Amino acid sequence: MLVQGKPYRTVWLQGSSVQMIDQTLLPHAFQIITLPSCRETAQAITDMRIRGAGAIGAAAGYALAQGVLEAPAGAGFWPAVQQARALVEGTRPTARNLFYATERVAAAVQGLAPEQAREQAVQEAQAIADEDAAFCKRIGEHGSSLIRDGARVATHCNAGWLAFVDFGSALSPVYQAVRQGKRVHVYADETRPRGQGASLTSWELQQEGIPHHIIPDNAMGFLMQRKEVDLMLVGADRICAADGSAANKIGTYEKAVCAKDNGIPFYVAAPSTTIDFSLPSGAAIPIEERHEDEVHFVWGRDDQGAFRRVRISPAGTRARNLAFDVTPGRLITGFITERGIHKPDDLMQLRPR
Amino acid sequence: MLVQGKPYRTVWLQGSSVQMIDQTLLPHAFQIITLPSCRETAQAITDMRIRGAGAIGAAAGYALAQGVLEAPAGAGFWPAVQQARALVEGTRPTARNLFYATERVAAAVQGLAPEQAREQAVQEAQAIADEDAAFCKRIGEHGSSLIRDGARVATHCNAGWLAFVDFGSALSPVYQAVRQGKRVHVYADETRPRGQGASLTSWELQQEGIPHHIIPDNAMGFLMQRKEVDLMLVGADRICAADGSAANKIGTYEKAVCAKDNGIPFYVAAPSTTIDFSLPSGAAIPIEERHEDEVHFVWGRDDQGAFRRVRISPAGTRARNLAFDVTPGRLITGFITERGIHKPDDLMQLRPR
Repeated sequence: MLVQGKPYRTVWLQGSSVQMIDQTLLPHAFQIITLPSCRETAQAITDMRIRGAGAIGAAAGYALAQGVLEAPAGAGFWPAVQQARALVEGTRPTARNLFYATERVAAAVQGLAPEQAREQAVQEAQAIADEDAAFCKRIGEHGSSLIRDGARVATHCNAGWLAFVDFGSALSPVYQAVRQGKRVHVYADETRPRGQGASLTSWELQQEGIPHHIIPDNAMGFLMQRKEVDLMLVGADRICAADGSAANKIGTYEKAVCAKDNGIPFYVAAPSTTIDFSLPSGAAIPIEERHEDEVHFVWGRDDQGAFRRVRISPAGTRARNLAFDVTPGRLITGFITERGIHKPDDLMQLRPR
Repeated sequence: MLVQGKPYRTVWLQGSSVQMIDQTLLPHAFQIITLPSCRETAQAITDMRIRGAGAIGAAAGYALAQGVLEAPAGAGFWPAVQQARALVEGTRPTARNLFYATERVAAAVQGLAPEQAREQAVQEAQAIADEDAAFCKRIGEHGSSLIRDGARVATHCNAGWLAFVDFGSALSPVYQAVRQGKRVHVYADETRPRGQGASLTSWELQQEGIPHHIIPDNAMGFLMQRKEVDLMLVGADRICAADGSAANKIGTYEKAVCAKDNGIPFYVAAPSTTIDFSLPSGAAIPIEERHEDEVHFVWGRDDQGAFRRVRISPAGTRARNLAFDVTPGRLITGFITERGIHKPDDLMQLRPR
């Protein structure tokens, strides 16, 4: 997608170096970092310079490919590859896509001679990244049929291209609709506590020249009540096929309840790899409770341009910080995947044979 | 209520000076300011050193009493009183309680000789403040019957004693329940964009020693879904008797929809003076749209202790900032006023004869 008028992916391989947009600086500064080694790419994943399921997966694939490239030929080759894999898998241990990517790269090189393994590792990592982008593009193509000319689309958190390799999930239908010549206005809620809507989604939309407003999370329901929203699109961290529920950034459930109360279609967009066919119900999805300082402190740029945090609560108060919630299938109009648009009751049909 | 173990009101008269807690410094510093003249008290109201319907009303009554005290005996007396009234009424022109207070003080002194007028103005201003505190106390007595021992009570924004003269509206039942020996845990959402929950409600509760957590606005629905909330209590800026709806801080509607979805009782607590008997429906309540910078910038204390704002959105993005929303009566379990607990359908019966 576009940044300052030029097309970018979130992460890519240049020779044997990984390059990525440093997302910790967004939206205040746009900077590409170059990571010449597996160790440095792994560190960048740990430091959350890249975030979002698809983007982490692609970065992990590239990182392990770097590990294979760096492994010395001879007896030390496979131990070095194993070590690289352990390093990459230790960066964000709860990110499923990360393991999907390292497994794929590891399987692709298994039993090969070092030279072939190096070539194959790079090819497989590239395939992972390209597939992610292709899946997201297809989500956009399917989803854009839901967006009429002049639509006002609401979204929560950042499920745009910054969370993937390109295009994004929830925002991909918007990007495709705009390419089809439709006029679209986006309401991006700020998404406390980490503010991905205010910082990342608005930045993406700004770079693409798509009209939008940021709103406080509290305002989405009222905008819906006033019929100022036509459609809501969100992403998902995990989808439970058994009951059609979706775990996503905290607040998604609130928005879905409000959409239902106002008869506004509410769609979850994600690659089908996000669907979990083994869970009995969404209630079984473990919910991370993160550090309370994310609630007490807000990061931003001060009037002199420096990054700085400010405390918004009295010293000594406690906060709770549930990172995700689970939206039941009864509140979800449909799921948009690279394979099409599906009703919550039909997800089991997508199970791989 | 208690601050550092000592009882305080938000505003009071000491001799001919108004004293008030400077709420612009909360929760980071507790400071009483002394306002020796009508002009200075009016300025403090304009500067939002005091905020909240009841507190503004009391401050306005005291300010006009100061104006009467300062007016020179003789021909200049009534013109000076008129001027003081205009000054006070110009401070926050949309605050209804402000006009209620100035009207009451003006009516009390009408036609009196200057000396009597001075005495009467102070008495009436004191009566306004005392009534506000008494009404809030009674709200607490009625509302505390809804709170069982061990209850987890959720609230939105600040409808505590800082918004009134004492006790508050939504928090008054909590304070009374605790005085009755019940154990209560409060979930205060931070209430973006201005953060009154994180800053003021949590500070009040901390000073009273009541266990509580701050949560992001996005998390309330999920806590309800997990049955971690037993009851929600909020305040109101205006209640429409005709349809039992309530205008309150943006986000109230979202919380009410979530409470309904989870079968959690949702009460609106406010003095009966907040009820509007003339409006045909809540949809007729005008909704203020405030400056977008309240969304783009967050104020707080930096790591060096200085007050500072940080920008959370990219430069140049736009935001919308609807200050209030309207919660329909179908989502409200009941209203708690100084007169008792009322169903949304029964509010017209409270109309003064």
